[in-house]
Amino acid sequence: MPFTSKEVHLLERPQGLPTPAQFRIVATQVPDPQDGEFVVQNIYMSVDPAMRPRLAGQTELNAPMIGGTIGKVVQSRQADFKVGDFVTSLCGFREYFLANGKDKAQNVQKLDPDGMPLTAYMSVLGTTGLTAYGGLLETGALKDGERVFVSAAAGAVGSIAVQIAKLKGCYVIGSAGSDEKCAWLKNELGVDVAINYKTQELRKALKEAAPNSPGKKDGIDVYFENVGGDHLNAALPRMNFQGRIPVCGMISAYNNFGSISEPVTTLSNMIYNRLRMEGFVVYYFEHLRLQFLNDMKRWIKEGKIKYRETIVDGIEHAPHALIGLFKGENIGKMIVQLAKE
Amino acid sequence: MPFTSKEVHLLERPQGLPTPAQFRIVATQVPDPQDGEFVVQNIYMSVDPAMRPRLAGQTELNAPMIGGTIGKVVQSRQADFKVGDFVTSLCGFREYFLANGKDKAQNVQKLDPDGMPLTAYMSVLGTTGLTAYGGLLETGALKDGERVFVSAAAGAVGSIAVQIAKLKGCYVIGSAGSDEKCAWLKNELGVDVAINYKTQELRKALKEAAPNSPGKKDGIDVYFENVGGDHLNAALPRMNFQGRIPVCGMISAYNNFGSISEPVTTLSNMIYNRLRMEGFVVYYFEHLRLQFLNDMKRWIKEGKIKYRETIVDGIEHAPHALIGLFKGENIGKMIVQLAKE
Repeated sequence: MPFTSKEVHLLERPQGLPTPAQFRIVATQVPDPQDGEFVVQNIYMSVDPAMRPRLAGQTELNAPMIGGTIGKVVQSRQADFKVGDFVTSLCGFREYFLANGKDKAQNVQKLDPDGMPLTAYMSVLGTTGLTAYGGLLETGALKDGERVFVSAAAGAVGSIAVQIAKLKGCYVIGSAGSDEKCAWLKNELGVDVAINYKTQELRKALKEAAPNSPGKKDGIDVYFENVGGDHLNAALPRMNFQGRIPVCGMISAYNNFGSISEPVTTLSNMIYNRLRMEGFVVYYFEHLRLQFLNDMKRWIKEGKIKYRETIVDGIEHAPHALIGLFKGENIGKMIVQLAKE
Repeated sequence: MPFTSKEVHLLERPQGLPTPAQFRIVATQVPDPQDGEFVVQNIYMSVDPAMRPRLAGQTELNAPMIGGTIGKVVQSRQADFKVGDFVTSLCGFREYFLANGKDKAQNVQKLDPDGMPLTAYMSVLGTTGLTAYGGLLETGALKDGERVFVSAAAGAVGSIAVQIAKLKGCYVIGSAGSDEKCAWLKNELGVDVAINYKTQELRKALKEAAPNSPGKKDGIDVYFENVGGDHLNAALPRMNFQGRIPVCGMISAYNNFGSISEPVTTLSNMIYNRLRMEGFVVYYFEHLRLQFLNDMKRWIKEGKIKYRETIVDGIEHAPHALIGLFKGENIGKMIVQLAKE
């Protein structure tokens, strides 16, 4: 019996902040599996800031959008994927899909929850966690005890990055857009200085927290960049000699036609301080995945890494969840729940 | 008999482009050397864009400015430095100075011209050449046959960088501010595409020369950055995957209160293309100096590296020479001649 799957389609490319009318929920029939095929019901799907630039070009119009999911096999004629198996895939923004386990674009992989909550694999144990881990330790080349600034520190990636930095004995500054988020950063995650960039003057607050005085190493060694624009402008003059800026994202740019960021005018600080700025995408950290999972599961069990999720219910609300990201409506990972576990 | 030395002093810190009235020529007496001391007469002194940011803070007011020079020992009570020896030092902007050969700030080093013209050690065989060599090959990690863009390509460093890139079999694009400079780049230095950024629309011209079409490697692998602002804005979207941007200078920023560059709004290109931008200063390339001198002397003898100099006569004109740099009055290295060889 074919399943009916509701899917989210993009109707037109947003200019600026996406609006709900630019998306449509479409119901389709999922064909019954043939030999070698199976049907997956998605349980959770991820909503990420990085989806925004893709809306400007890569995302197909009038077709199901893509994104990370965790689902369960509900029909199968494929021996490797049995009914009841959990799988991760890139087939988000739809309730059900047909798979064969070999399509690289779908990237369906079996998931062994290993005693951890399923949603952890959407956040702290998934690409979100690996992004923070690889960006900070590999691209950022973080050394124990250094001084770290993380922007969007209460976001999914940022909140893991600040905790990894604290585990490495670092002095950690985080920025976020509400007092509630800042309180969480300080009181729960152990961040040394939390800056509310909406109520405080970011440049001044950052200068107080990391003055970068001549001859002292009291600036920032690693700036984990999620925002761009004003944040990058404020951070560059505060960077210590040979500081590193791993660029995870520039959320301030994403709603400006996909890639036009707020102006940055302090880049000449890079020269004398010999700064390094480097973009990265989580796909490049596959070689770190096993080490990451070992570290992260241990840290979670030891209570050293905390994580929060903002779970929105029902595929109908997926567009709102995506738009909400750019309004700062989430603390930690933004997830849409599509079905019961 | 003590020498009278004319020196250039900075009187006040420039806001924007320096003006002649902010400098003064002051005559002083150089003390006769005591045991272990000697007197140097400067013959050539260097004028560099990098001097501009130092005027905003590091340069002492009402004291002789500093900068690279080549001089000759004219009095000596130090066995290692005999009358007639050539020396390099950081004691520019003055005609004579007293030295002991041990002061690190003066950094007096004996120079063996080795059959090369003295002025070559101010440019192609000096810090200018080493800057281009280290910035392109070490910081930029240039590989043979890559695609290179050099801004201020007719400047002292830029004109060497484009030739090294051509020697490495690269496709080379250069920007400069006059048709005369562009003709020199194309006809004499072998640059593939020369862009006059004053008469052409830089973004459009760069897009034609290095489209960075999807799936092709027809963008820029290494952008040797001397300018910042509009140039960086135009280059970022043209960078190939894993492109590198060694930041040598940002001359567009230097006259804006020392460090405020023109706004850059295309930095989010760094993320998906995994770009690396890194500042550098020539001091970090000392470990390359011998290899650099061997390579560069060979290239000059083989006629593979050409260089031009703009030589201004007399210390009285040193401030004008410095200001002239920011107006693009030089082709190749800007040098002030203080005495006959």
